[in-house]
Amino acid sequence: ASVALSCNFFGLKSIIFMTRDSYLKKPYRVNLMQLAKAIVYPSPSNATKCGRKLYKENPNHSGSLGIGMGEAMEFVRSSSKYRLALGCMSYYAALHQTIIGLETQAQLKSVNIKPDIMIACVGGGSNFVGFTAPFIGEKLKKKNKIRFLAVESANIPSLTKGTYKYDYQDYYGYTPMVKMLTLGHKFVPPQLHSGGLRYHGKTPILSLLVTKGVVEPHSIKQEDAFIANKIFYETEGVLAAPESGHAIAQTILEAKKAKRAKKTPAIIFCLSGNGFLDLAGYAKVFGLHTTELYHEKKSSNHE
Amino acid sequence: ASVALSCNFFGLKSIIFMTRDSYLKKPYRVNLMQLAKAIVYPSPSNATKCGRKLYKENPNHSGSLGIGMGEAMEFVRSSSKYRLALGCMSYYAALHQTIIGLETQAQLKSVNIKPDIMIACVGGGSNFVGFTAPFIGEKLKKKNKIRFLAVESANIPSLTKGTYKYDYQDYYGYTPMVKMLTLGHKFVPPQLHSGGLRYHGKTPILSLLVTKGVVEPHSIKQEDAFIANKIFYETEGVLAAPESGHAIAQTILEAKKAKRAKKTPAIIFCLSGNGFLDLAGYAKVFGLHTTELYHEKKSSNHE
Repeated sequence: ASVALSCNFFGLKSIIFMTRDSYLKKPYRVNLMQLAKAIVYPSPSNATKCGRKLYKENPNHSGSLGIGMGEAMEFVRSSSKYRLALGCMSYYAALHQTIIGLETQAQLKSVNIKPDIMIACVGGGSNFVGFTAPFIGEKLKKKNKIRFLAVESANIPSLTKGTYKYDYQDYYGYTPMVKMLTLGHKFVPPQLHSGGLRYHGKTPILSLLVTKGVVEPHSIKQEDAFIANKIFYETEGVLAAPESGHAIAQTILEAKKAKRAKKTPAIIFCLSGNGFLDLAGYAKVFGLHTTELYHEKKSSNHE
Repeated sequence: ASVALSCNFFGLKSIIFMTRDSYLKKPYRVNLMQLAKAIVYPSPSNATKCGRKLYKENPNHSGSLGIGMGEAMEFVRSSSKYRLALGCMSYYAALHQTIIGLETQAQLKSVNIKPDIMIACVGGGSNFVGFTAPFIGEKLKKKNKIRFLAVESANIPSLTKGTYKYDYQDYYGYTPMVKMLTLGHKFVPPQLHSGGLRYHGKTPILSLLVTKGVVEPHSIKQEDAFIANKIFYETEGVLAAPESGHAIAQTILEAKKAKRAKKTPAIIFCLSGNGFLDLAGYAKVFGLHTTELYHEKKSSNHE
């Protein structure tokens, strides 16, 4: 959605290849991009040769970020007028997102808090890197002793169970290879409400930092992420995206661990997105209904 | 949703009577309240005698804020354990919302801007009063010359075409009468995407201020509100609620008028809500589709 909006700001036309599973689970996110004049395809789509093949084999293919990336790459190669822009995983996406880390740094300074633990969720890794980069820079210069926790989905465990090797960034092998922690570019992740976390690898800079022990990899199950989000909503009044719930669940774990150890670390986590566009997922996970519930029950007694 | 969330914070059980038209148009807002453990009825509902009657007469009754208020009132009278809380229209809702005006005042002071025009949308009127009250207080003491513009829906024109008289706050006549600009408590507004503006009257304090000429009443059509919201999204990247679009449309009108007159007033408007829960309305108004579009069109050529 950010790419679509940015293109529209600068009078550029955007064509989005959105993972089919996310496209179906988050129709209003599609509408949001369309409002910014984007053309949005559920990937695998029939807009490219490579997508068409997978789509014909299985019209219910849930897709993956790697497949969408491959389709976009084929599309871009078809005309010199096109350029590729990735929403995550790329270095420039991570670079743009460092604004989050720089703002966090300024805010913490203004309230005189030094973080002990920093936590963010990880799909491609750009949000995590953007949030932590300024602090990791300091740590590498031995100016802090912060623990950095990157939290992936337990269903796409490239950080915790992947291999550190050269691999393609997309499903088809159109993109340059990069060295990263990966489950293999042919890995098709299961359907998930946290569509943003469904990527087979992690951005090279994060993969290196994990390999070197600077960043701790963790994984959280989708159910636990939703429960954490519900607790957060009930206590703070803010509804977070399912992706962000992975960071919140890990934060709760760390807070409980600290309490048991009678310690009081400053734990800072990144709330990467709001959950208003994911209420269909919430409704499914928690069995919420609207009219159905109303018509089914006799309601004169509420005690 | 704020009432449901607040109740949950304090361990209270909330039962919400939500206008049926809004309930159907904004199912995810219902889910949001359910996440805060609220029981939500589409009003007219079968949970009360008075609601049941209207519901039986017409199961597709679109409802109104006045009907919901009446149902809640009947419900509250059935047990001494219950208390009534209104989301808008009431004095306490307006009082709570003055935090918006006080923050606006502090922010404008910090950037050394003195407003010439202040604009907000009006349903019951509490958001408008909350936003403007601190500035209206100053104006009554002759400390500023701000123009205050209250913008209602052209479909529910109580400010611009209503009568200033004593009237019931609810449809059934259960609540105390108050003196206000009203279309009559039996008025049932047309279906609207701006559900928050579907109230037959305006809070007494605002009605008085309009009658005395301190606040200017304006009205905007739903279509114009959506177009204004689209312009705002495309230029500012923020998707506003349909209700807020009425304030934005009026702001654009005032800006254009000022430009023609070669003036540069400081126009401040209140963005009362975000539009993520109203994307179904946006999709309908602007003819956006998700999968349908995709399956209908042949997509190998995008030029």
